[in-house]
Amino acid sequence: MTTTLVTNIGSLVTNDPAQGDGTPLGLIENAAVVIDQDKIAWVGAAAEAPAADTAFDAQGRAAIPGFVDSHSHLVFAGDRTQEFNARMSGRSYSAGGIRTTVAATRAATDAELEANLVRHLHEARRQGTTTFETKSGYGLTVADEARALRIAAAHTEEVTYLGAHIVSPDYAEDPAGYVDLVTGEMLDACAPYARWVDVFCEKGAFDGDQARAVLTAGAAKGLIPRVHANQLSFGPGVQLAVELEAASADHCTHLTDADVDALANSSGRTVATLLPGAEFSTRAQWPDARRLLDAGVTVALSTDCNPGSSYTSSMPFCIALAVRDMRMTPDEALWSATTGGARALRRTDIGVLAPGARADLALLDAPSHVHLAYRPGVPLVSAVWQRGVRVH
Amino acid sequence: MTTTLVTNIGSLVTNDPAQGDGTPLGLIENAAVVIDQDKIAWVGAAAEAPAADTAFDAQGRAAIPGFVDSHSHLVFAGDRTQEFNARMSGRSYSAGGIRTTVAATRAATDAELEANLVRHLHEARRQGTTTFETKSGYGLTVADEARALRIAAAHTEEVTYLGAHIVSPDYAEDPAGYVDLVTGEMLDACAPYARWVDVFCEKGAFDGDQARAVLTAGAAKGLIPRVHANQLSFGPGVQLAVELEAASADHCTHLTDADVDALANSSGRTVATLLPGAEFSTRAQWPDARRLLDAGVTVALSTDCNPGSSYTSSMPFCIALAVRDMRMTPDEALWSATTGGARALRRTDIGVLAPGARADLALLDAPSHVHLAYRPGVPLVSAVWQRGVRVH
Repeated sequence: MTTTLVTNIGSLVTNDPAQGDGTPLGLIENAAVVIDQDKIAWVGAAAEAPAADTAFDAQGRAAIPGFVDSHSHLVFAGDRTQEFNARMSGRSYSAGGIRTTVAATRAATDAELEANLVRHLHEARRQGTTTFETKSGYGLTVADEARALRIAAAHTEEVTYLGAHIVSPDYAEDPAGYVDLVTGEMLDACAPYARWVDVFCEKGAFDGDQARAVLTAGAAKGLIPRVHANQLSFGPGVQLAVELEAASADHCTHLTDADVDALANSSGRTVATLLPGAEFSTRAQWPDARRLLDAGVTVALSTDCNPGSSYTSSMPFCIALAVRDMRMTPDEALWSATTGGARALRRTDIGVLAPGARADLALLDAPSHVHLAYRPGVPLVSAVWQRGVRVH
Repeated sequence: MTTTLVTNIGSLVTNDPAQGDGTPLGLIENAAVVIDQDKIAWVGAAAEAPAADTAFDAQGRAAIPGFVDSHSHLVFAGDRTQEFNARMSGRSYSAGGIRTTVAATRAATDAELEANLVRHLHEARRQGTTTFETKSGYGLTVADEARALRIAAAHTEEVTYLGAHIVSPDYAEDPAGYVDLVTGEMLDACAPYARWVDVFCEKGAFDGDQARAVLTAGAAKGLIPRVHANQLSFGPGVQLAVELEAASADHCTHLTDADVDALANSSGRTVATLLPGAEFSTRAQWPDARRLLDAGVTVALSTDCNPGSSYTSSMPFCIALAVRDMRMTPDEALWSATTGGARALRRTDIGVLAPGARADLALLDAPSHVHLAYRPGVPLVSAVWQRGVRVH
């Protein structure tokens, strides 16, 4: 391996407040980065950069840490085009919702599931995502959940067991029996492949007691909790997440003052992960990012990429929505899509460009990271390094 | 030149209701297209396709007519990142608005303006745009308006004289004198390069009488009117556009019932061109596309790409907004971004895939055009032919 100098970076977001302009983004103008194997070896002013074996001229482009997409659902088969089309066109449609994807996923071969996952990962990577979390949750049998996690684990370290996505249709008359399965045999089969345990705590999915059972059983097997919380209605999810020291409460669309206080009082231990792609594609109410940020809550921004409610893999698109519709500043949105995601995954080696961090970075065909919101929908990511390897 | 067969198209939007499924989109499943030089020679079922000299396998992807972006402002210099950042972050900023871009544009060399234009055109083309209209309006002197149009005319046939964008700062105390210039010496210098004459009819820009003077003077020189109408407030723009048989009334955000009636009664002669990128980037009220469509108005969808209020070149992004926020169906949005734009430019050779039409088409990395709205922000355009030449 050789060292690579990426130089002539017009504007570099390091997310290291010790560097650059002293803001949380640690912005350096006319910057350079030295990559040594899979790590960042040096960051600073281009004029002071040390020598390296090879050089890449960024020609004044902006550079940012690769996006950390800490919430996606990418082990699935089929799509839900007709359901989406009917919903957006105001036509009735006997939508199966998640059940449609469950049926297609169960019917798919391992190779089909893996090819679909890889296709979406490559698509996300071209848009600057260098770390992604992904989940099971479309299998809902012991064998189908375990194979989803096994397939995911071959492509990312951030694998989440979501057997408790919905009550399996096979247990429609016996939800308690399904919780027993999720906390018993299914957990035993899945835990070896996963780092995280998750539950969809919502009316029609799992209530607070069921969610607690799922998360505590997972934790007993060494999995760290994260929670789909307060997406469609007020409920116990967020406070349960804080109480159980979950890494993240995801969605956070319907929050009481007590929910916001609980997240703020966790001092960043439980991150609020906002997923505006879901509100976009379901025409739902936007999460109030401003309220969370002003209360001191740590906020992450992710895609929720899934074929039902948010079929986008684009972190730049989520940043544009966060700024326009959730009242985040362009700086806050960029931070939340990088370091924020890392916090939600309890990682310090990603989402930041500082010596020793993973060499995950994206170049933008723009002079500033602000252009991700200023130029919505435009594919601005022109180059991506992942663990020091140029992948786009 | 040789003929090219593009085959194995999973789903083809022709916009020819005589073809395929009988809807306005003229959708054909398992389709093929034959390109002969710069024209479409044949369209139909893949199984019935004639032989051609070369073949391209679309591998089941969807194909659509290239987008017709009938409203952009691409002859400019500089950007307005700080103004955007301040607006979206709730900070005050002594924004110069259009005047900032006027100053930067006047200061730029011809080569700089052309390079900037070409950069944005290539960016748009990679996103499927094969025809674009563009305007002057950041020069506001005789020489600067004429050079903007001369530069634009080297890259598109659809060039619009917009000397009446705002009153030139040089005439701040004498708006009547500026209208005299725009309808006199400036028009004489600009008309040879332009097909269209346009005016920003709005409080703080040009009132109804001034707009009428600009459009009738332009028409007397052979330019066809189009109007920036009813963007920021109610006003006379839309009805003036219809009365003067303008090809398009653009923006149409604030409409009375009489405005909607006037557009509907024009029977498509005056198209309503909606520009949701502007409402997105200024957090403004959405135009009510549903009201216009239900009244029978012909609707086009365009980017309004400009560095101040809508710095997106992405027609797919505008489609996603049109569906989510303006209540267009995915089919209507696709039609408006292709044939709708062609109607707004009074063209029948583009926006459609039928024998004799221009061979302008885009392949999507998706099975259906619905995915442009279903997968917001994701760069789905995988190949583009413009006048029969593969350009992406």
